Amino acid sequence: MDLKEESLKLHSENKGKLEIRSKVKIENQHDLSLAYTPGVAYACKEIEKDKDLAYKYTSKCNMVAVITDGSAVLGLGNIGPYGAIPVMEGKSILLKELAGVDSIPICLKTQDVEEIIKTVKYLEPTLGAINLEDISAPRCVTIERRLIEEMDIPVFHDDQHGTSIIVAAAFINVARLTKRNLADMTIVMSGTGAAGSMIAKMLKRIGVGKIYAYNITGVIDKKKYDSYDFLIKELIDEGTYDTPKSHDNTLASIIKGADAFIGVSAPNLVSKEMVKTMNPNPIVFAMANPVPEISYDDAKEAGAYIVGSGRSDYPNQINNVLAFPGLFKGALEVRARKINDEMKLAAANAIAYIISDDELSPDYIVPSAFDKRVVNMVSKAVSEAAIKTGVARINK
Amino acid sequence: MDLKEESLKLHSENKGKLEIRSKVKIENQHDLSLAYTPGVAYACKEIEKDKDLAYKYTSKCNMVAVITDGSAVLGLGNIGPYGAIPVMEGKSILLKELAGVDSIPICLKTQDVEEIIKTVKYLEPTLGAINLEDISAPRCVTIERRLIEEMDIPVFHDDQHGTSIIVAAAFINVARLTKRNLADMTIVMSGTGAAGSMIAKMLKRIGVGKIYAYNITGVIDKKKYDSYDFLIKELIDEGTYDTPKSHDNTLASIIKGADAFIGVSAPNLVSKEMVKTMNPNPIVFAMANPVPEISYDDAKEAGAYIVGSGRSDYPNQINNVLAFPGLFKGALEVRARKINDEMKLAAANAIAYIISDDELSPDYIVPSAFDKRVVNMVSKAVSEAAIKTGVARINK
Repeated sequence: MDLKEESLKLHSENKGKLEIRSKVKIENQHDLSLAYTPGVAYACKEIEKDKDLAYKYTSKCNMVAVITDGSAVLGLGNIGPYGAIPVMEGKSILLKELAGVDSIPICLKTQDVEEIIKTVKYLEPTLGAINLEDISAPRCVTIERRLIEEMDIPVFHDDQHGTSIIVAAAFINVARLTKRNLADMTIVMSGTGAAGSMIAKMLKRIGVGKIYAYNITGVIDKKKYDSYDFLIKELIDEGTYDTPKSHDNTLASIIKGADAFIGVSAPNLVSKEMVKTMNPNPIVFAMANPVPEISYDDAKEAGAYIVGSGRSDYPNQINNVLAFPGLFKGALEVRARKINDEMKLAAANAIAYIISDDELSPDYIVPSAFDKRVVNMVSKAVSEAAIKTGVARINK
Repeated sequence: MDLKEESLKLHSENKGKLEIRSKVKIENQHDLSLAYTPGVAYACKEIEKDKDLAYKYTSKCNMVAVITDGSAVLGLGNIGPYGAIPVMEGKSILLKELAGVDSIPICLKTQDVEEIIKTVKYLEPTLGAINLEDISAPRCVTIERRLIEEMDIPVFHDDQHGTSIIVAAAFINVARLTKRNLADMTIVMSGTGAAGSMIAKMLKRIGVGKIYAYNITGVIDKKKYDSYDFLIKELIDEGTYDTPKSHDNTLASIIKGADAFIGVSAPNLVSKEMVKTMNPNPIVFAMANPVPEISYDDAKEAGAYIVGSGRSDYPNQINNVLAFPGLFKGALEVRARKINDEMKLAAANAIAYIISDDELSPDYIVPSAFDKRVVNMVSKAVSEAAIKTGVARINK
């Protein structure tokens, strides 16, 4: 049975991937009078007096909605909210299976930015946090920022920040393994969408020296400022993207002499020859999916010291599964109002330091997605960062 | 421990009443590749081609959202969407525990009718059906009707129709037990809100002769037509409410000579003396909660033959729990597009005929809320009615 057949069978035989369970028994009139009328009214009245008590008396404390509009589902594009359901259910069950976090999939039948923002805000009462998913760029940035500002529970768009946390963890470990100073490194990035932008921001936050960026229009250059979307402009303004001293608008012209390449763009953009022009022992993270910018074998043959990808069948898989379960668990445990940069950095550090100095190697820069230690280390670090930065409702 | 203490303990110890569970295992890379990327993409693509396949490959097939705006929660009034959460969670777990139907609570942070309608429509993709709950009248009628018209999945406001189905079942059994013809009966109703209106409509559907209605403004009378809200006007127009030949605008003046009284209104409106003026062997359903229009004991002492209430500590409890779990189960099993009157009538009949001729007695007119036969009988009858009336997507 091939993957298609096996996956469709799994989805249809189980009638979807998630179900709801009661945590209390309803077997007789007394049970009913406690969990439903008339006893339930006491919990209602407590919460009416202080809405934060919803965290105490309801499932809000552990409930994440995975919300999409179906506009950018996996690599499938704008397949709409119905086609997106299996992915959102998948994300929901990963939260439960990996981190014990309850989660419901919500696929909105609108792709209007303002309507999405309004709707998500209306859904807040029963939710402890929101995971935005598979919303097209740059709309996703607008939606996430507005919701973060206007809501009082964490809102996190995994496609933007998930990968950036794991890549940051990987580069923390690159520095540890190679004893190099991140401040001395020049990184070339291919892809300036939501994921690429947030990776660049995170890398600057952890101290990377220079970042040159490239997209389908060529090399990102201050001189072409007016032609860019708001996100690229922002990254130029804040100094996240640097302009190379000289280039001929090709990826080859900026990858030459770089210390690392990070791709979140398109298949086969990087040749072996290009890797050979990089500084000695170059680092290559080629994360286009399923076909990367350069294959693991080609990159290695061309002299790359460390190679990472989005694929599970090669070393150093940059897999969001390492970050979001523990991140949400940690945020929920302290009833955080936000997931801020400090919490994301704490997650990156926690992921990096799962691997001890002795264990670190070019093929073991990031932990396995199924390393059972990851979730608890990440959630602990995230909770602590939330408390430290004052966004936690409880300081345990 | 009193009820308050015990109920708050149950809610806080369990951190709310519901959780999400995965129906598939995620323990290794292969599991991940089937339930999530890359395998999940095959299910997405199937659904993109035909959105009805969401019923086959996702949890939509068995998923009900219990949706409120918190404007009329239990008898507590407009306590808002946060205070409403424990009730919605309670309803969700009842659906699961009694009928195996998955359900998520959604408490909307808006009480604007148009915004509620729009939001619920946006939520449709992952849902198999919608249970509206605890929304104030007459807004609830507008919201439900618009959603039924504009959506392609069942929308059912339990506060309107739940009680009406059980009361209809009770009167089917009143007719069986007393060998009386419903067409010969005059029923007086106290309460003309959403529940009262739908009870009156259902009773006329099953053949009750005359219905006189009373509310806080007095006796409902065609002469005062212009002073009524749209719902009362509608019930007068369609002939559901009859105007008594003579009355002095008091409940006492219309209850005299009536065969039955049904109250969904306020405590202690009916005296023993009033019951004594009714026709011989009168029937009294006093459902104001927690204090009924007249107590079971007083009604019996005044000569009532059959007495029902909303209370679990007296015979003939009119409990919505008898109807909605089986109703949703039956609608979902055939992927119904609507819950129509025929399906509600089918549910009423199924509930009534759970009790055999031999078992029927004045104190056993409706089955127990925990009678395990009810859910399956109701769901079977509802599925059949959906198929018969052409609202089922599958005709098994």
